[in-house]
Amino acid sequence: MTKRYPPISAKLPVFMHGADYNPDQWLHAPEVLKEDVRLMKLSHSNVMALGIFAWAALEPEEGVFTFEWLDKTLDEFAANGLYAWLATPSGARPAWMSQKYPEVLRVGANRVRNLHGARHNHCYTSPVYREKVAIMNGKLAERYAHHPAVVGWHISNEFGGECHCDYCQDAFREWLKRKYGTLEALNHAWWNAFWAHTITDWSQIQSPAPHGEMAVHGMNVDWRRFVTDQTIDFYRWEEAPLKAANPALPATANMMDLFDGLDYWKFAEAVDVVSWDAYPTWHAEASEAQVASWFAFNHDLFRSLKGKPFMLMESTPSLTNWQPVSKLKRPGMHKLSSMQAIAHGSDTVQYFQWRKSRGSSEKFHGAVVDHVGHEHTRVFRDVTEVGETLEKLSSDVLGAGTDARVAIVFDWDNRWAIRDAQGPRNMGVHYEQTVVQHYRAFWELGISVDVVSRHADLSAYKLVVAPMMYMLDDAAGRKFEAYVEAGGTLVTTYWSGIVDENDLCHLGGFPGPLRKTLGLWSEELEGLHPHDANGFVYDGAAYESHELCDLIHSEGAEVLATYESDFYAGRPALTVNRFGRGKAYYLATRAKEPFYERFYAKLAAEAGVKRVLGTELPAGVTAQARTDGENEYVFVMNFSGAPQTVALDAHAYVDLETGASVTGELALPTNGIRMLKR
Amino acid sequence: MTKRYPPISAKLPVFMHGADYNPDQWLHAPEVLKEDVRLMKLSHSNVMALGIFAWAALEPEEGVFTFEWLDKTLDEFAANGLYAWLATPSGARPAWMSQKYPEVLRVGANRVRNLHGARHNHCYTSPVYREKVAIMNGKLAERYAHHPAVVGWHISNEFGGECHCDYCQDAFREWLKRKYGTLEALNHAWWNAFWAHTITDWSQIQSPAPHGEMAVHGMNVDWRRFVTDQTIDFYRWEEAPLKAANPALPATANMMDLFDGLDYWKFAEAVDVVSWDAYPTWHAEASEAQVASWFAFNHDLFRSLKGKPFMLMESTPSLTNWQPVSKLKRPGMHKLSSMQAIAHGSDTVQYFQWRKSRGSSEKFHGAVVDHVGHEHTRVFRDVTEVGETLEKLSSDVLGAGTDARVAIVFDWDNRWAIRDAQGPRNMGVHYEQTVVQHYRAFWELGISVDVVSRHADLSAYKLVVAPMMYMLDDAAGRKFEAYVEAGGTLVTTYWSGIVDENDLCHLGGFPGPLRKTLGLWSEELEGLHPHDANGFVYDGAAYESHELCDLIHSEGAEVLATYESDFYAGRPALTVNRFGRGKAYYLATRAKEPFYERFYAKLAAEAGVKRVLGTELPAGVTAQARTDGENEYVFVMNFSGAPQTVALDAHAYVDLETGASVTGELALPTNGIRMLKR
Amino acid sequence: MTKRYPPISAKLPVFMHGADYNPDQWLHAPEVLKEDVRLMKLSHSNVMALGIFAWAALEPEEGVFTFEWLDKTLDEFAANGLYAWLATPSGARPAWMSQKYPEVLRVGANRVRNLHGARHNHCYTSPVYREKVAIMNGKLAERYAHHPAVVGWHISNEFGGECHCDYCQDAFREWLKRKYGTLEALNHAWWNAFWAHTITDWSQIQSPAPHGEMAVHGMNVDWRRFVTDQTIDFYRWEEAPLKAANPALPATANMMDLFDGLDYWKFAEAVDVVSWDAYPTWHAEASEAQVASWFAFNHDLFRSLKGKPFMLMESTPSLTNWQPVSKLKRPGMHKLSSMQAIAHGSDTVQYFQWRKSRGSSEKFHGAVVDHVGHEHTRVFRDVTEVGETLEKLSSDVLGAGTDARVAIVFDWDNRWAIRDAQGPRNMGVHYEQTVVQHYRAFWELGISVDVVSRHADLSAYKLVVAPMMYMLDDAAGRKFEAYVEAGGTLVTTYWSGIVDENDLCHLGGFPGPLRKTLGLWSEELEGLHPHDANGFVYDGAAYESHELCDLIHSEGAEVLATYESDFYAGRPALTVNRFGRGKAYYLATRAKEPFYERFYAKLAAEAGVKRVLGTELPAGVTAQARTDGENEYVFVMNFSGAPQTVALDAHAYVDLETGASVTGELALPTNGIRMLKR
Repeated sequence: MTKRYPPISAKLPVFMHGADYNPDQWLHAPEVLKEDVRLMKLSHSNVMALGIFAWAALEPEEGVFTFEWLDKTLDEFAANGLYAWLATPSGARPAWMSQKYPEVLRVGANRVRNLHGARHNHCYTSPVYREKVAIMNGKLAERYAHHPAVVGWHISNEFGGECHCDYCQDAFREWLKRKYGTLEALNHAWWNAFWAHTITDWSQIQSPAPHGEMAVHGMNVDWRRFVTDQTIDFYRWEEAPLKAANPALPATANMMDLFDGLDYWKFAEAVDVVSWDAYPTWHAEASEAQVASWFAFNHDLFRSLKGKPFMLMESTPSLTNWQPVSKLKRPGMHKLSSMQAIAHGSDTVQYFQWRKSRGSSEKFHGAVVDHVGHEHTRVFRDVTEVGETLEKLSSDVLGAGTDARVAIVFDWDNRWAIRDAQGPRNMGVHYEQTVVQHYRAFWELGISVDVVSRHADLSAYKLVVAPMMYMLDDAAGRKFEAYVEAGGTLVTTYWSGIVDENDLCHLGGFPGPLRKTLGLWSEELEGLHPHDANGFVYDGAAYESHELCDLIHSEGAEVLATYESDFYAGRPALTVNRFGRGKAYYLATRAKEPFYERFYAKLAAEAGVKRVLGTELPAGVTAQARTDGENEYVFVMNFSGAPQTVALDAHAYVDLETGASVTGELALPTNGIRMLKR
Repeated sequence: MTKRYPPISAKLPVFMHGADYNPDQWLHAPEVLKEDVRLMKLSHSNVMALGIFAWAALEPEEGVFTFEWLDKTLDEFAANGLYAWLATPSGARPAWMSQKYPEVLRVGANRVRNLHGARHNHCYTSPVYREKVAIMNGKLAERYAHHPAVVGWHISNEFGGECHCDYCQDAFREWLKRKYGTLEALNHAWWNAFWAHTITDWSQIQSPAPHGEMAVHGMNVDWRRFVTDQTIDFYRWEEAPLKAANPALPATANMMDLFDGLDYWKFAEAVDVVSWDAYPTWHAEASEAQVASWFAFNHDLFRSLKGKPFMLMESTPSLTNWQPVSKLKRPGMHKLSSMQAIAHGSDTVQYFQWRKSRGSSEKFHGAVVDHVGHEHTRVFRDVTEVGETLEKLSSDVLGAGTDARVAIVFDWDNRWAIRDAQGPRNMGVHYEQTVVQHYRAFWELGISVDVVSRHADLSAYKLVVAPMMYMLDDAAGRKFEAYVEAGGTLVTTYWSGIVDENDLCHLGGFPGPLRKTLGLWSEELEGLHPHDANGFVYDGAAYESHELCDLIHSEGAEVLATYESDFYAGRPALTVNRFGRGKAYYLATRAKEPFYERFYAKLAAEAGVKRVLGTELPAGVTAQARTDGENEYVFVMNFSGAPQTVALDAHAYVDLETGASVTGELALPTNGIRMLKR
Repeated sequence: MTKRYPPISAKLPVFMHGADYNPDQWLHAPEVLKEDVRLMKLSHSNVMALGIFAWAALEPEEGVFTFEWLDKTLDEFAANGLYAWLATPSGARPAWMSQKYPEVLRVGANRVRNLHGARHNHCYTSPVYREKVAIMNGKLAERYAHHPAVVGWHISNEFGGECHCDYCQDAFREWLKRKYGTLEALNHAWWNAFWAHTITDWSQIQSPAPHGEMAVHGMNVDWRRFVTDQTIDFYRWEEAPLKAANPALPATANMMDLFDGLDYWKFAEAVDVVSWDAYPTWHAEASEAQVASWFAFNHDLFRSLKGKPFMLMESTPSLTNWQPVSKLKRPGMHKLSSMQAIAHGSDTVQYFQWRKSRGSSEKFHGAVVDHVGHEHTRVFRDVTEVGETLEKLSSDVLGAGTDARVAIVFDWDNRWAIRDAQGPRNMGVHYEQTVVQHYRAFWELGISVDVVSRHADLSAYKLVVAPMMYMLDDAAGRKFEAYVEAGGTLVTTYWSGIVDENDLCHLGGFPGPLRKTLGLWSEELEGLHPHDANGFVYDGAAYESHELCDLIHSEGAEVLATYESDFYAGRPALTVNRFGRGKAYYLATRAKEPFYERFYAKLAAEAGVKRVLGTELPAGVTAQARTDGENEYVFVMNFSGAPQTVALDAHAYVDLETGASVTGELALPTNGIRMLKR
């Protein structure tokens, strides 16, 4: 059974609640700090992410440091029972640094160096930037690593992007030398004989460029891996002086939903606690279920990255200012979306930002304190309600884990490779959407899910779902084979087992390493036009399919469904292979709803996977659970866009907010949530 | 009462009628000039805009000037009773200049210098270009400032665009130093503490760049203001030698419809007479009313810029060659659209161009003389009809003014700031379209309108409409307050009073400086998706609204309508506040038609604003008037796309073309116009 | 009458069948070659296009040549009765060359030099590249020009693209000097007086650039002509050492369908045999007729380029990997589309490629041998069937010609000029689609068509169709006049006779040189919006028209149809002028189907043009013929997407595949084809 995890900070052993705080924007108005502290307490906030872009305020001239305002802020916090995730300010350089040392600025794929501006655009390799960061972080660590208000380090901000400067080119070449050893190995892995691309000297290697090389898939995926590694290397460089001063203080870097640029499986190894920034586009459709399940998947992903409670580092208390349409949160939604994070394993609810900026590009992004400056706003009341709710939950739920018996495989280099592949459907094969489509079935069923990489240990799972496992090396293939052989249930799909870790096709028949496990051979795969469709009958019901149709031959697998049309009508569309003590399912085409929910309901039942609630849930309503191994904390959440009634099962339930006993039916208003102890 | 303005040129005290004329394209065919003069007279033309891109013909080598062909053209004009707006040729440099002095070429925001080519792409700051322009203009002035055929100067062509070269960077920095004095002031105004953007040396400032800074709103708006000022500075530099030779000769620069790049309120101060180039896209829809009202707004804007008759410097006698589809003018449309300009205050009707070029990019743009070369074309007959009509009108209408009691506020830096704002609806808040939507109500009602900047004196107006006054500084706010207090009627909307002149948000509650005048507080503003709608009931009728919904609290204002749906149903959607002796209306959401026409009909009646005709007009038909203070000249124009009948009021009317008395009803064919003296 | 042409290679006097073969990708797996030879023979293949991108394998270091693998491949071929089109490898340079001599890399219109990468991106002017190519080709020629397995040279690959480096700028200027002699002539031709573009020194000329000049139409068309000439010059440079070694060995360069970048009329003069790469997007719609007629037009074009059998150099045996959706070929389609090429005059069916690459950007492009590696695939069976079919046909059809009495005019510089023109409908006038629309009528009727340039000898044709002959110089105009005068039937349309060879408008009335022949004057041309339509009645039936309406005056032509709506209702929409002994038709607007098929059925009958089959064909079914002057070989092809029945005429037919006699009706399944000898 799972256990209770220690709090993220022993200093603040409750749910953290707060926001990004940038007092450096208000140094000209000293009265603001005191007012902010009053409002923070009023809103039941207890933690701020502090000084995220404060470099210009901390070092206005090279070598001149001005920590007084930060001292004052932290002391004021300490005096008022408030805490801070103290930021390193590397997310944006001061103008003097860009001017004096242009090498700190990123160079684009077009080989043009950025001018000073915006943010998140420094070179991760630049020796000067690394030196400046080391000095800054050293000073911050020296001064604040033991400050009573500091609960941890917020390193830089939303790491991402890439640089193509000469330093980075050299670093990439060194990375490749370490990986491949010889040019012969590299040329083979990148299949460089194609189009005479053979490299005869390491110095000939250039990172991908629109006016150079974009289509050597092996290089592309290596470049993405290098960017991840170099970013992590930079993170570790930032972290070193911080840890040197106080090894006990946790550090994190805020991540982003399904962010494409970095392999978070690797990045998660570097951070002490995973944190991320969630900005759902609520209220774009009548039902919120599509958005909610997408973000539920992300919450589960970020929990799974380290297999323990994570942090919701940023979210908006109101609207964003960068989506195509800025919707206000309807009544109930702020609490519901905040508690959704908790339900999936977050131990914090934090916002961007505390007080709205007066100027520049984010001045209309939602914040706890609006330009009007007082607490008498709908948004402030919503935030306060969440603060109060978190206080009611902390003693029960904080540190509780998640007991999932279903795993969904999601991998970054698979994702990169799929997007890079030319054919079979360049207008879109929709890897991420497909993964979330499978996930959503479990979400609707109220079944807990972990997200895993293809290299994960699968032994804890009764059911493993691995859609479009395009990039699958032999070792990973053997692992899945062993999983099935040992009694596991595996579901995979078309476009799996196609290439190895270098994006070289498996020879000898697809799905490559899984051919034996699945008991089939995939001869051809074709794309469908948007106006095309096919379909199949499964378990007595007809389902439509679209986008891709795999033409397979059973080599032992049982055919569960066949195509209904086109020249391959009658050929297998869904198969299962009994292998060892387990079963391996293969879905040959992208089915449409409601296939997945019915399919996985059946498989889950067969595999002995329990639902959080032993009853049927209305569409758009999910139940998620956390547990300390003894008690279960059940979150019943209504994202359907309409009031709903949910039947409880026979267990005894207590409402976590009121302490009242609950039985029978739960009435959930639109955007309603109930949190129960079982 | 208004008065009669003096003619633009005392040499030609009639309506001017003519076209751009480029004899430098036909120097190899000397017979063309004599034929052109014959055709000009045949078409009842009297003025040409001469030599607009003639630099290569005037100075084929550096320092070698060839004015003979221009002498000949002007002498021939003089001999035939024709006149010229003589152009300075700076709109395009000769190739030798670009080659020898690359600094004359513009540098893009990407910091890449243009190659020679196209036009309108010189640097306004370049010392070499300014020197070359001064020499050229000095020679032109010396030779032609007193030529009998020259009625004025056409300076360069369609000023616009920007340059990011080092000269311009320095000029921008100097402009900022003059404006802000200290870096502290600049850093505050630009809210540079955000993202560590604090500037510590003036030399760190760089103009906006896609690979640098694009999102510092204060800088963006300052850059646009600088570009306007630098362009005006260049205009004045061009004008100086011309005025030195003959201060009496008027100068103008042709402007463009709702051109975004320059603040025409400022630019208008520099020119002697406003002129502009109008290219409506007629015949794209069944009714022409949308296009006609857009151009009517522009005509009113260009008249209002200096508050006196303006020039229609360019229009096409037929089709354009640069719109997505080149439509021919249907019968009647050439006269109707030409007279529309006169109706709104133009004292000229001019075309681009006289004779179609044989080659290059504008060879298929409509012209008076087609490639066929003779006068036996539909277009030539249409042009001749306009020439004859203008001759009939000159003695009455020339120099007559416009007596408007309604003003609509339209501001360039407000427009720039609105477009720059991130949120509340990045897919479009449609400032210009909204302003014209309000305008169109008056156009349909046949009510004369002035367009004013937010700094204008409002005392002459009974009704002031100021949609989306997003950028509103305290001083302007006080002016509007005083206007209402003194008895005026003000209408403003959502997204008003948000930022000051530096794009810094007003603190303490929106709509900032107007909160007291309007008697309300705006707490939140949300964007609506394209598929979303809301609505309200006003004066017994229901109206739809879309795009933006402002959630306001009355602080004294009377609620005239409330939202009908969403979680803010029942909250105010339209209010009026009695303040001093006046009234201030606030429309909280973007209403759809037919709200505006009904709303403004009622307000105009209450405010005592008269319609041009005291009868109801069919949709798509407008009546506009000019007056010399004694007689009124009424233009009844049918843009409805179908024949219409208009009832006259009880006044006595005389047809300006026929001299016949008119009473009862006017029958207007499709694209028909009647011009009456009252 | 036509005659039988000699086989492309006397060594292999049968239909060639094979694929691109890149053994340089498999040098690490020597067993592959033997297996490939086994499979080639098994699939009834006899020829491979060999080593197209093998430079890095042939010259791994500068001056170090490694021909052993190529020796071995060719010797193995010779030993097994297989042949090769041996490629020069210039389509992609090795990395060492790009690194050491950056000048070999192309410079874009933005004046940025490419980095190494991709393919087809070398400078055609670079002295270094030419030197390296000469050395490589000399070595290849020396070693293989007399190898028994080599049937010809495949020079480089898919020539195209352009370079803007300084070498190319100089070459362009020299080309212009040779063409114009004086700057005065150039300035006139380019109409450089417009916008002061007059060039006063050759060095001022710069190739078109997005940040320079894009709208001097005369320069644009000259630049395109220069690019063609420079590419041909490079081709000849490549060919010289090859021909020096063995003048008898034919050389070709593979072309692409309606490729825009090169004037194939000129390029075809340089090659010994025309070859091209066909990649239809089958199975995107219910009927294949649109795609099939487009490719039929291309087959006819490529046959017409040299007026003799051509080569289908590349096609896919399965799917492509670069179209938006990768469709598999349905049963029958591989044979049908392969035989379509034969029907229109190809003497080969070749594929890209033989064996699927394991990695990089084309690894999912269809190939004869899939990653699975064996012959037990649907695709391999389809390929084998085509090989067997070709063997059955060779003795009859190989070398047979095409006897067309209809010509359609298609010209590259006309195409470039039309696209460049600004107005009359910038959203699209659809030249290529219009030409193919006219062509399709003949295709549906089963009438053989040649494609000709406007400079072609027309005397063999009874009917000449010349849609949108926008660019038409006086000499070409006189030729068409003489054709009609001598008894020919000419059909042309709106937007004809507008500009001369320099893109200068004809003065004195459109359609310029054809005004007398057509007996009409075109006064105005207007564009229609997508929602606009007009129409006319012809021969008792009503037809819709759209996009463009020409307003013409008959000057002797008989009016066959008039517009039905808009202000020009009643004016001529279709005319015919009897001129000399012939007739000249003018279609003033873009008609919609089914006008063209009915119109051309009537004209063909009147002009005595025969259909291949003397019966009516179902829609989507065509009949095409080849002939040796004695026998006719009739291909009846069903692209309708459904089974069809075709009635044969009274001739005697023998099935070319079975030898059986055929009479009465042919039953064609979906994608069916029957090949008959008459």
